Amino acid sequence: MNSDHLHASLVVIDALQYSNWDRKALAQWREGGLTAVHVTCAIWEKPREAMANVMRWHRRAEEHHDLICIAESAGDVRLAKKAGRTAVILGFQNASPFEDDLDLVEVFRRLGVRISQLTYNCQNQAGGSCYEPADSGLTRYGKNLVAEMNRNHMIVDTSHSSERTTLEAAQASQAPIVATHANPRAVFDHPRNKSDQVLREIAAGGGMLGCTPYPHLLPMTGDQAASWADAVCHAIDVMGIDHVGVGTDLSLGWDDDCLAWIRNGTWTRTADTGASLTGNASWEPWPAYFQGPADFPSLTRTLLVRGLEEDEVRKVMGANWLRFLEEHSEV
Amino acid sequence: MNSDHLHASLVVIDALQYSNWDRKALAQWREGGLTAVHVTCAIWEKPREAMANVMRWHRRAEEHHDLICIAESAGDVRLAKKAGRTAVILGFQNASPFEDDLDLVEVFRRLGVRISQLTYNCQNQAGGSCYEPADSGLTRYGKNLVAEMNRNHMIVDTSHSSERTTLEAAQASQAPIVATHANPRAVFDHPRNKSDQVLREIAAGGGMLGCTPYPHLLPMTGDQAASWADAVCHAIDVMGIDHVGVGTDLSLGWDDDCLAWIRNGTWTRTADTGASLTGNASWEPWPAYFQGPADFPSLTRTLLVRGLEEDEVRKVMGANWLRFLEEHSEV
Repeated sequence: MNSDHLHASLVVIDALQYSNWDRKALAQWREGGLTAVHVTCAIWEKPREAMANVMRWHRRAEEHHDLICIAESAGDVRLAKKAGRTAVILGFQNASPFEDDLDLVEVFRRLGVRISQLTYNCQNQAGGSCYEPADSGLTRYGKNLVAEMNRNHMIVDTSHSSERTTLEAAQASQAPIVATHANPRAVFDHPRNKSDQVLREIAAGGGMLGCTPYPHLLPMTGDQAASWADAVCHAIDVMGIDHVGVGTDLSLGWDDDCLAWIRNGTWTRTADTGASLTGNASWEPWPAYFQGPADFPSLTRTLLVRGLEEDEVRKVMGANWLRFLEEHSEV
Repeated sequence: MNSDHLHASLVVIDALQYSNWDRKALAQWREGGLTAVHVTCAIWEKPREAMANVMRWHRRAEEHHDLICIAESAGDVRLAKKAGRTAVILGFQNASPFEDDLDLVEVFRRLGVRISQLTYNCQNQAGGSCYEPADSGLTRYGKNLVAEMNRNHMIVDTSHSSERTTLEAAQASQAPIVATHANPRAVFDHPRNKSDQVLREIAAGGGMLGCTPYPHLLPMTGDQAASWADAVCHAIDVMGIDHVGVGTDLSLGWDDDCLAWIRNGTWTRTADTGASLTGNASWEPWPAYFQGPADFPSLTRTLLVRGLEEDEVRKVMGANWLRFLEEHSEV
């Protein structure tokens, strides 16, 4: 089958985006054939601000109901595919909206949130981040938080968490855990990427990795599409074909002030460099093969060019995430 | 000099209390000859709730101006002594009111807060607690928080912090750090008590330990007054006579529901046992020699009986804390 025809037939799921959305951006999801997108409603936000971000999505879904719907169940994702709309899965990149209050998990589950990272770039009450000098592992509260997320069928995301915290979360969680947007460290050695041990533990529990074309998490030189395909293929080798998907970390429409906030929050007054190993204080350009949501067909093409079978491409581009959502969450 | 006459002549400072205060409790401060008390305005509270607790003290000071005043400078403590009132030093037992926002340090300094612990019983964004299974040390944010507290002349208290976090705070801080209420671990082996290495590092930086008669932090059997004197004497041996004071951790007037909140906050749904090694879910009775604020003369007597010189007793009972406050804080 022709690559673009194949793409059009697929359930396509992006396990993480964080853009400055407007109607034009939502229309690009349709252009790229996206069935579902996990969107970020909190990075540093505390409960009240996170609540506002979540409710803004419910209002957006009303306003742009021809383009999107909020997915509160896996059935919603399937319905969106049939209706030619994109399903929006609400999530957090930090446990900051839960503070240290277990009840806030149910609060946000009732508001539609279906997934949360345990930590963003900094140590918090629940666990350690990949950028901290020492690794607290999953704390006593962190263990309780994972159990409460399990009870609420909320997916535990460890993308920015430290090695020990991720391994201990995999062990503590009754449900599989995921890393929505990261690459194998064996392909590119970066604190945000995941060791083979972590990938094996995630897969052994039934979890998922979303491989990302985010430029900081792959080699900056050479064929960037091929590097992303390397990440996908290594993850398949280590985790098996059923545990690998896409999580682009796509972040468009923000200025450098927003990037500074994403990196520095309110925790530092000197500029943190986040994921950039070169200290770039501006947004790194996205690679030519993947400039935005309209370029999802290019990811399908990249995997076919790499030699993956159509059924493997189908799984990586979205079927694996959909199966995972059906089996292990209320999405 | 007779013990009670000596006591009446002293500046008496208690480096930590957390009681359910009313006018009767404030009057007992006078009865016990207390010159100043560091009171807890937050244990788990977030900014808005901590702000309410702080402002409640400003209202209390207006209502009971014949008994107390808020100390915003060391001069206020001296004035309180002359006027026969007790100076109240506002503080936090957790960095929770600062969340991960450096600006909140100045906010609370401007509201009158002069001291804060980095952590209470749980890991937070700044550092590790003495009860966590693994020790994060002082995090990247924690280092920034200590610097911001230094800039605001806010005292860094490490009473409930882990070993590594305390040592790293001592190293990171431009000003001396303290443990307002803890005992030497050599006298009683408890995670809340401080190792000789920690005591040496605190003293080397010019800091202070407040020794506590809190029953969980000393042997439960034997002569409890003598055990407290052991703690004071061991601290003097390790830290020197100028670095040891009193921090009772006195907590009166609360029911067991409040104790459960102090221990469990919102971070766990199973009963945590806090400092109790026996799992007592009720308040442990205070020892006979120290039943409440009116019994401060008994602490002076205990030190004299133990053989401390009058000048040493004077230092431990309050002069050391007053000197420390004058030199290293805006209190």
